[in-house]
Amino acid sequence: MTSLEFFRLQTREEVLALYPRFSPVGVEEVDLLAALGRVLAAPVPAPEDVPAFLRASMDGYGVRAADTFGASVGAPQYLEIKGEVPMGAAPERPAGPGETLRVPTGAMLPPGADAVVMVEYTAEHPDGTLEVRRPVAPGENVLQPGEDVQQGEVLFPAGLRLRPQDLGLLAALGVTRLPVFRHPRVAILSSGDEIVPITQQPAPGQVRDSNAHLAAAQVAEWGGVPTLQGVIPDDFSALKNALAAALGEADLILISGGSSVGARDLTLEAIKALPGAEVLAHGVAIRPGKPTILAAVGNPPLPLLGLPGHPASAAVVMEVLGRPLLARLAGLAESRSWEDEVTALLSRNLAGASGREDYVRVRLRREGETLWADPVLGPSGLLSPLVKSDGLVMIPLGVEGLVRGESVTVRLFSPGL
Amino acid sequence: MTSLEFFRLQTREEVLALYPRFSPVGVEEVDLLAALGRVLAAPVPAPEDVPAFLRASMDGYGVRAADTFGASVGAPQYLEIKGEVPMGAAPERPAGPGETLRVPTGAMLPPGADAVVMVEYTAEHPDGTLEVRRPVAPGENVLQPGEDVQQGEVLFPAGLRLRPQDLGLLAALGVTRLPVFRHPRVAILSSGDEIVPITQQPAPGQVRDSNAHLAAAQVAEWGGVPTLQGVIPDDFSALKNALAAALGEADLILISGGSSVGARDLTLEAIKALPGAEVLAHGVAIRPGKPTILAAVGNPPLPLLGLPGHPASAAVVMEVLGRPLLARLAGLAESRSWEDEVTALLSRNLAGASGREDYVRVRLRREGETLWADPVLGPSGLLSPLVKSDGLVMIPLGVEGLVRGESVTVRLFSPGL
Repeated sequence: MTSLEFFRLQTREEVLALYPRFSPVGVEEVDLLAALGRVLAAPVPAPEDVPAFLRASMDGYGVRAADTFGASVGAPQYLEIKGEVPMGAAPERPAGPGETLRVPTGAMLPPGADAVVMVEYTAEHPDGTLEVRRPVAPGENVLQPGEDVQQGEVLFPAGLRLRPQDLGLLAALGVTRLPVFRHPRVAILSSGDEIVPITQQPAPGQVRDSNAHLAAAQVAEWGGVPTLQGVIPDDFSALKNALAAALGEADLILISGGSSVGARDLTLEAIKALPGAEVLAHGVAIRPGKPTILAAVGNPPLPLLGLPGHPASAAVVMEVLGRPLLARLAGLAESRSWEDEVTALLSRNLAGASGREDYVRVRLRREGETLWADPVLGPSGLLSPLVKSDGLVMIPLGVEGLVRGESVTVRLFSPGL
Repeated sequence: MTSLEFFRLQTREEVLALYPRFSPVGVEEVDLLAALGRVLAAPVPAPEDVPAFLRASMDGYGVRAADTFGASVGAPQYLEIKGEVPMGAAPERPAGPGETLRVPTGAMLPPGADAVVMVEYTAEHPDGTLEVRRPVAPGENVLQPGEDVQQGEVLFPAGLRLRPQDLGLLAALGVTRLPVFRHPRVAILSSGDEIVPITQQPAPGQVRDSNAHLAAAQVAEWGGVPTLQGVIPDDFSALKNALAAALGEADLILISGGSSVGARDLTLEAIKALPGAEVLAHGVAIRPGKPTILAAVGNPPLPLLGLPGHPASAAVVMEVLGRPLLARLAGLAESRSWEDEVTALLSRNLAGASGREDYVRVRLRREGETLWADPVLGPSGLLSPLVKSDGLVMIPLGVEGLVRGESVTVRLFSPGL
């Protein structure tokens, strides 16, 4: 009855394996602070050493460590104080043998000095002598030139999503502009004769366009720039024209389809009529989310993801297939899986879906030391179970179910790619 | 020698307990999609039922369930097909006893019908009769009016950070404008005679202003709007004037101080000279991060956080004290701790800091099923250990240390508050 039946369901892994055929988006250059959360498009080698000079890491006295060997409270060593290194300036003179200069934390050591004696282990005498009550080793209480990062060292590879501490070190290096991948532009089309814009009061039988807004928010959360293309009627030409228009302006097209079989078939025909269209997957072995379409359209080929009509299905497909697709387009090379996953104990038995990976919405709940995952059940036509959930538990293909008390990995609805 | 000694070190909990004296920032109204990641300033009760009408959740036939009771493949029930409910419109007629109408997924059921028979369990005969081979219960394959959310129900309390699925349901409800807390404005001052702007080539003894950029990026990551106020020289009047100017334009003042004792004392004096100034904490029992200042300044009192000069210390203080402070100002009421924390096994022994909570940078590494936390050691004057880390492990006050193989909670450097 439906064209779905002519396709074999593909597994999630099979669909993910298709993604390398799509290229990351282009590159732009942005200011340092604007690069937060962006994905580096090229490695950034350190243009210079940090620190650039031998630097005190404690308040104290710059010394030749050898001058302090054997010093103790009972038998201190004595050094001649030759002045102070001002903050933010070069020392006015070196520290010769038997000499020392006061150095505040962060200041440059005078030439000759190779360590700092902390102020706590000294006393200044009125005659300009410093009493040193503890020895220091060479390099003690100082930062060596290049100790943080050496010129040419690559701490920032391409594909890295930049975090605050990365920007901190790049600031120290004087790197003020960075090459990053553009934000992927995502065109989102809503189809379905029952759908009206969210600003409209629905007539009987009509509903507001919630799925497109959910998908748009997911795209924004994951670093894409969503553009809502509005509601397209269930009409072949209208759908095809809207898709063709989106093709020129987007890096990814999402079509939030009607949930009826008729609407889905029409969407598929419109996709096939696009230039260069190739349907790569039609039907994925996940639940909810079976009626998902992945196509390549245009030249060079852009990805098009056709989402199921039920909101929970669409949201799961976006999490499971849309997010990795966006990560591919965004040029993201790293995976910090611990930011997206948490281990919890399942609070009730769950039956799996024969022949499909089953994604169950769960709410997390801390009880003492234990984190519980409470399944939030409900038809996939509802939005509220998603609102009440914190993430998804997957029952793998071929697994009959999970039992109460079992340790499960919860894929979090967390911000960021 | 330092004014620190006149203060008792306060614990992290004692500092956090001071935050309720600061009020959340004001409220603004934003469009639905702009509300992503924002904190709701007032509860949003559902203005109407979703769904608004009895809705098919499967493709099939709208029936009176009672008409199908006892139906089987061997003894089907027969109903009269009275037409089809178009998508997005009210049914043209009811379904009387013995009658049925075709309904696509998502369409409104005809009056009288209380269930949908899936198309798979039926056959249409040429005479307009529907053969039903399986019974349905009342309510089967339909969504009831209000099943997702009922008018007046509050799924969105004040203090909630809005996620994509929240916006999806709000879209379905026709809520297109939302009251959210403003982004907290954070003025960031850099002090220290050794500090130069990041665009400048440092002379010997000078370093670029990395700490302020690190803090600014953290603020932005956590939903604040940072403003870099530039580098202020180590001069009482200059510091006081810069602080006073920031007072009028910010919800929180951060001062990224010099790391020397002299610079810190000067900063403290400048803070104390502000109108309404009250130093609430000077010295916190954490490592790194001891020389931290929390003050209330101005009227109404705004928080001012004085950060230590070492970059690792400043970053830890921002994570441990700055982030909860920003959460308070942002009006965030919920805590989703599982988004910030992960459990891992420590890969080596760690000694604690006597008398202070010790925060150790760790890098996470997956090895089969095991997540390892590898301590990244190094002086707190360095930035690169932060760059190489994924989070922090805390050794509690009074604990001598942690041992290799021990299960530890890693506080992630994760995006979002």
